[in-house]
Amino acid sequence: MRSTYRTRGEILSTVPSPLVNARALSNGHSVVFPEDRPLVTDGGGVIAPLTIGYETYGVLNAERSNAILLCHALTGDQYAAGAHPVTGKPGWWDVLVGPGLPFDTDRYFIICSNVVGGCMGSTGPACYNPATGRAYGLDFPVVTIRDMVRAQAMLIDHLGIDTLFCVAGGSMGGMQVLQWAASYPDRVFAAMPIASAPRHSSQNIAFHEVGRQAVMADPDWRGGRYLDEGVRPEKGLAVARMAAHITYLSEPALQRKFGRKLQDRSAPTFSFDADFQIESYLRHQGLAFVERFDANSYLFVTRACDYFDLAADYGGSLAAAFHGSKTRFCVISFTSDWLYPTSASRAIVHALNAGGASVSFVEIESDKGHDAFLLFEPDFFATTRGFLDAAAAARGLPPAGARE
Amino acid sequence: MRSTYRTRGEILSTVPSPLVNARALSNGHSVVFPEDRPLVTDGGGVIAPLTIGYETYGVLNAERSNAILLCHALTGDQYAAGAHPVTGKPGWWDVLVGPGLPFDTDRYFIICSNVVGGCMGSTGPACYNPATGRAYGLDFPVVTIRDMVRAQAMLIDHLGIDTLFCVAGGSMGGMQVLQWAASYPDRVFAAMPIASAPRHSSQNIAFHEVGRQAVMADPDWRGGRYLDEGVRPEKGLAVARMAAHITYLSEPALQRKFGRKLQDRSAPTFSFDADFQIESYLRHQGLAFVERFDANSYLFVTRACDYFDLAADYGGSLAAAFHGSKTRFCVISFTSDWLYPTSASRAIVHALNAGGASVSFVEIESDKGHDAFLLFEPDFFATTRGFLDAAAAARGLPPAGARE
Repeated sequence: MRSTYRTRGEILSTVPSPLVNARALSNGHSVVFPEDRPLVTDGGGVIAPLTIGYETYGVLNAERSNAILLCHALTGDQYAAGAHPVTGKPGWWDVLVGPGLPFDTDRYFIICSNVVGGCMGSTGPACYNPATGRAYGLDFPVVTIRDMVRAQAMLIDHLGIDTLFCVAGGSMGGMQVLQWAASYPDRVFAAMPIASAPRHSSQNIAFHEVGRQAVMADPDWRGGRYLDEGVRPEKGLAVARMAAHITYLSEPALQRKFGRKLQDRSAPTFSFDADFQIESYLRHQGLAFVERFDANSYLFVTRACDYFDLAADYGGSLAAAFHGSKTRFCVISFTSDWLYPTSASRAIVHALNAGGASVSFVEIESDKGHDAFLLFEPDFFATTRGFLDAAAAARGLPPAGARE
Repeated sequence: MRSTYRTRGEILSTVPSPLVNARALSNGHSVVFPEDRPLVTDGGGVIAPLTIGYETYGVLNAERSNAILLCHALTGDQYAAGAHPVTGKPGWWDVLVGPGLPFDTDRYFIICSNVVGGCMGSTGPACYNPATGRAYGLDFPVVTIRDMVRAQAMLIDHLGIDTLFCVAGGSMGGMQVLQWAASYPDRVFAAMPIASAPRHSSQNIAFHEVGRQAVMADPDWRGGRYLDEGVRPEKGLAVARMAAHITYLSEPALQRKFGRKLQDRSAPTFSFDADFQIESYLRHQGLAFVERFDANSYLFVTRACDYFDLAADYGGSLAAAFHGSKTRFCVISFTSDWLYPTSASRAIVHALNAGGASVSFVEIESDKGHDAFLLFEPDFFATTRGFLDAAAAARGLPPAGARE
């Protein structure tokens, strides 16, 4: 049995990864809920103690009325803005979060936490399981989007915040937004589910299953016990990421960006080398991913998405999930997103209308596919700013610049 | 070194596969071109001797004017109709090929051959390499669509046929149709490229690369030498097939057929079991595939598609590939095919028009995705029959029933 505890800076320095202490991974911000405050999951699992790693940006006002919770996507984490402490790259919403940006850190108190089941500071399958004295691995309970949101609510309670000014996120983050609005309608003033869906489609489940099978096909996965055995299923996880990555882009964007351009050569090699730029790009995406993500966490977060079907929790009626909601919604989709297409966002909008909720819906013209929600798209930028400004006025928050 | 020679019937009875004698795999129909008639590939490789496994249906008329060549898709083979001798399932175009069917075996002499690089009777990477005394493996030359067509032309010569009445095929088969029309315009009276494209797109290359990486990530791939070592990369190949299979279907068809339906259970298990029917279905597709297909062949046939860019061989002008062509074309696409979308077929049609060729174009309404070309779709059926009837009249073939 290994129980090496590591600090964040070390995680990438050695392969294979040892057992990770969740708290040590967080950039200094984490809360540990003790054994007597467990997270009881939808599947009947008990996670205790529960650690939630999180980041905050900006200052909470005296009225505690300016807090925004950002919910990250499948392989995202709490580092929404600024340089990511592990990868060194900009946070996943660095284009939107900061002083003077739509998620204006001069006006709002932005919170972003790593989902439970993740691998960047919140309790997940790579963490120490006190019940066994080794890493959880597949002993970690399968969590749902609702479990992720329950854990976030524990964090928000811990921070002393009653009502969130806004909950926002894209993709799996958007599912969390919808779950927040359904589970805690009085605690969400405004909500922005972006490039998301009220349930995971058959095709979405299919792509996730391919990824999981790729991980599990790797003999170094070892039935999920790779951390105990000092190995990592890197090849399988890289293949999973490559397949997923294609779904995040659009065919036109791939054609425009890569087309059939060759990589560092003037003619095909008639081999299985990465002749085409797209091949080289995908291989790079796979390799980069395994440096920052835990394979078992990938299984758990994809599974959480698969299980997401909000209407199923409300007798099959999505409208019932939002009945009488006072939350102001802004639903956003992107024209070339085929993973979470506009039709899925429209289903959300129809349900919100049927439930009597206040909703704006914007479909952004973009050829960048699903990943558009992570990129600077002027219309997306303007929509986000406009919605937040209007919601802030309704919330009685001072206008932008008033603090200066 | 192993050099076990096997008959066709044995191929599925034992895992791992031994070295396969291409000729033994064919259902009795094969031609071996001797050492002095090699296939010299686009990449400069030499395949000799070259075996081509093929099937025929119907009878060649005295004028030798009623021959139709069917070109199979990525993982298809020469068994277009009737029961497949290995899988026991109907041939891949059993719905279209037979007495009274559009590819009417009472009227036409239908030929279908396994592509070079394949694994069902034509020389491919699983075959004995006389230069080394073991299986080719990655010593097999990377072949192109044009190489496949060259090999088919050798077979057509061997059969004593000068001009084919029609060349037809879908997907990779459609690429071969286009290559036939470009390489041998005087030998193709009519051509039907279906659900195909004039070049492999960036997204198509991307999906193929994921499949190849899945195969190569399997430690049992052994650098392509698995046959020598008595193993097979079954898990990797199954993952490759699963990912590819999603691309053959449409999101609406998946939703209609599987949706979020659970498999043999009333509630999710909160595990990584195949809770959803779509998961069970995909796993089955992966497992069934590895029973009938060679992993290295999968690498080679995907690579052939990736390299396909017909215009590139004609100075970048697709129209130039068909300039002055006398061939009658019928281009067919399916509305829900996102792998080879209608836009790709339109590009073919525009080039044919620009090249002055005779072309009909039909986009078939179907929600079945790319695989629609393998299924009974009434409009597709009617279009095929109508085009062939008209072409047969123009060719001076007797009308249907005249032989009876």
